Amino acid sequence: MTSEFELVDRLASLFSAPEGVTVGIGDDAAVLDPGRFDLVTMDTLVEGVHFRRDWSEPEDIGWRALAANLSDVAAMGGGPGAFFLSLALPEPLDDQWVGRLCEGMKEAASELVPDSFEVSAGGGDLSSSPGPVVISITLLGEASPAGPVLRSGAVPGDRIVVLGMPGLAEAGMTVLSSDILKNEDFPLSVQAYQRPRPQVHAGGLVGLYGVPSAMIDTSDGIIQDLGHILEASGVGAQIEAFQLTIHPELAALEEAGAGRALDWMLTGGEDFCLLMTVPPARMPKLWDMARHRDWTVQDLGEIRAPKEGLQVMGLDGQPLDLDKSGFRHFEDS
Amino acid sequence: MTSEFELVDRLASLFSAPEGVTVGIGDDAAVLDPGRFDLVTMDTLVEGVHFRRDWSEPEDIGWRALAANLSDVAAMGGGPGAFFLSLALPEPLDDQWVGRLCEGMKEAASELVPDSFEVSAGGGDLSSSPGPVVISITLLGEASPAGPVLRSGAVPGDRIVVLGMPGLAEAGMTVLSSDILKNEDFPLSVQAYQRPRPQVHAGGLVGLYGVPSAMIDTSDGIIQDLGHILEASGVGAQIEAFQLTIHPELAALEEAGAGRALDWMLTGGEDFCLLMTVPPARMPKLWDMARHRDWTVQDLGEIRAPKEGLQVMGLDGQPLDLDKSGFRHFEDS
Repeated sequence: MTSEFELVDRLASLFSAPEGVTVGIGDDAAVLDPGRFDLVTMDTLVEGVHFRRDWSEPEDIGWRALAANLSDVAAMGGGPGAFFLSLALPEPLDDQWVGRLCEGMKEAASELVPDSFEVSAGGGDLSSSPGPVVISITLLGEASPAGPVLRSGAVPGDRIVVLGMPGLAEAGMTVLSSDILKNEDFPLSVQAYQRPRPQVHAGGLVGLYGVPSAMIDTSDGIIQDLGHILEASGVGAQIEAFQLTIHPELAALEEAGAGRALDWMLTGGEDFCLLMTVPPARMPKLWDMARHRDWTVQDLGEIRAPKEGLQVMGLDGQPLDLDKSGFRHFEDS
Repeated sequence: MTSEFELVDRLASLFSAPEGVTVGIGDDAAVLDPGRFDLVTMDTLVEGVHFRRDWSEPEDIGWRALAANLSDVAAMGGGPGAFFLSLALPEPLDDQWVGRLCEGMKEAASELVPDSFEVSAGGGDLSSSPGPVVISITLLGEASPAGPVLRSGAVPGDRIVVLGMPGLAEAGMTVLSSDILKNEDFPLSVQAYQRPRPQVHAGGLVGLYGVPSAMIDTSDGIIQDLGHILEASGVGAQIEAFQLTIHPELAALEEAGAGRALDWMLTGGEDFCLLMTVPPARMPKLWDMARHRDWTVQDLGEIRAPKEGLQVMGLDGQPLDLDKSGFRHFEDS
């Protein structure tokens, strides 16, 4: 069994510069530079619920755990800073497993976070557990000088835009849980599940330029997460599903009878796309930003008056009955 | 199964004023007042390791979870502010159980935190789990204007002082796990375990007046936690165990053959006492503060030169051989 000291040493060696943290790992609490951080998010992954050790390497799990928090800060239009890791660990897992988990976090920080921000480890806490691995991360971040992008800022007339490739992660989970489908035939879907790439750079950048009026990251699927924006903003919306580009892997999976592409795209979880509402006048800025970078941006509808509720127009342009359309309903987890 | 929304609603209703938090519960991240908080601590309790559902009511568990974090901030000489709760919950536990857990947190905040600080709920995260209850709390706090009290500030000549009643919590655990000893015969020990009272007020106050040169809260027992101060400060120490007042319940338990009072006092875990080093010139200030309040303060030794290591003088005034004295060695957890 690894000790808390080893965890803390490992984090300190991987995340060398605790920028924004005056006193880091190893006291009763971490001491922050005053005024540096104004965003806080906390996310927990539970083995058997959010990941499986037989599906993912420890590096993948560490990546995923940090990625989930990076995505939350990106969804505020801000940038990530110091994180705090708490680990509940069953007996058979050793130092090496924890080391590989931390390596995965470091890889996520290196690959996902632009140079303008530095992700550092502010502290670590380790408990033995008789149960599954539970990984809690608290991440501090900095809002843009333009202010944080909340869920509550959408107004009628705003466009609804998704940044990223919705549905791939859920499709990847379908592939991984299937005995028939081969992982190598659906590499992007499997990767979207095992090594999700939240839009850290894009979120920070659209936040910096004040592009979105509201934003959320998609962890429960576009429809459910748009619902959070609608509720917080007190508005309705119309989604035009026929505007969505269906990814070739999703099309191939639908053809193989593994599920419906539209279903994955609208209700697939764990995607870490950014779903934002954008005033029409700022759309050219967004298209311009996207063109110069590796962003997949899709305009999928419009914010409407609250009385219109949420309408989803299907691939044939006709409204879907959300209650009868076969969309799965997710429990919050 | 309770939902995250219900958890968040419950927290929002119990902890009404999210002071220091501009945007609290219900967005991707919480938004903090800039410059307000400069302390961060994160603590996790695992069912079966840190608590048992057959020994403690849900209110006690909630109390304990928040108390552990309050104690960490107190040990920095600071005051607590906004907290973030992450809960991994097995299936049979319902809304009512979670509600009672949150009530216990509110009770801890109300009873332990002086009016000069306000503890608010900044966010909540709920996951289902196939395993034991895991409760992670991240607590933000404010250091004193005199600066945070670190573990690294002890110098030779400083007195070593414990504030609180060491050993009672471990003794309480002994009582609770015994089939013979009756809980009602050892009420303070049982209470010290079930409803630990960290020194939130005292920690903030000694920090405000710059009394301690170094401080830690005792979670692993005086000897081990003093070891953290010695290591961080690069000093040695002599503890005079014969200076310690033995609590009547500990004496009675020793007489009943349940263990040794000195053992509980020096190595008993989960105590939430404050262990501090104090320059001799500031001792009168500390005695003066203690006299006016309900504080139990014991002077138990002196910081020495590093080459002297840690010497513990037993009840007979002779040095104990720490390796052979029968003190249990705790694994970090």
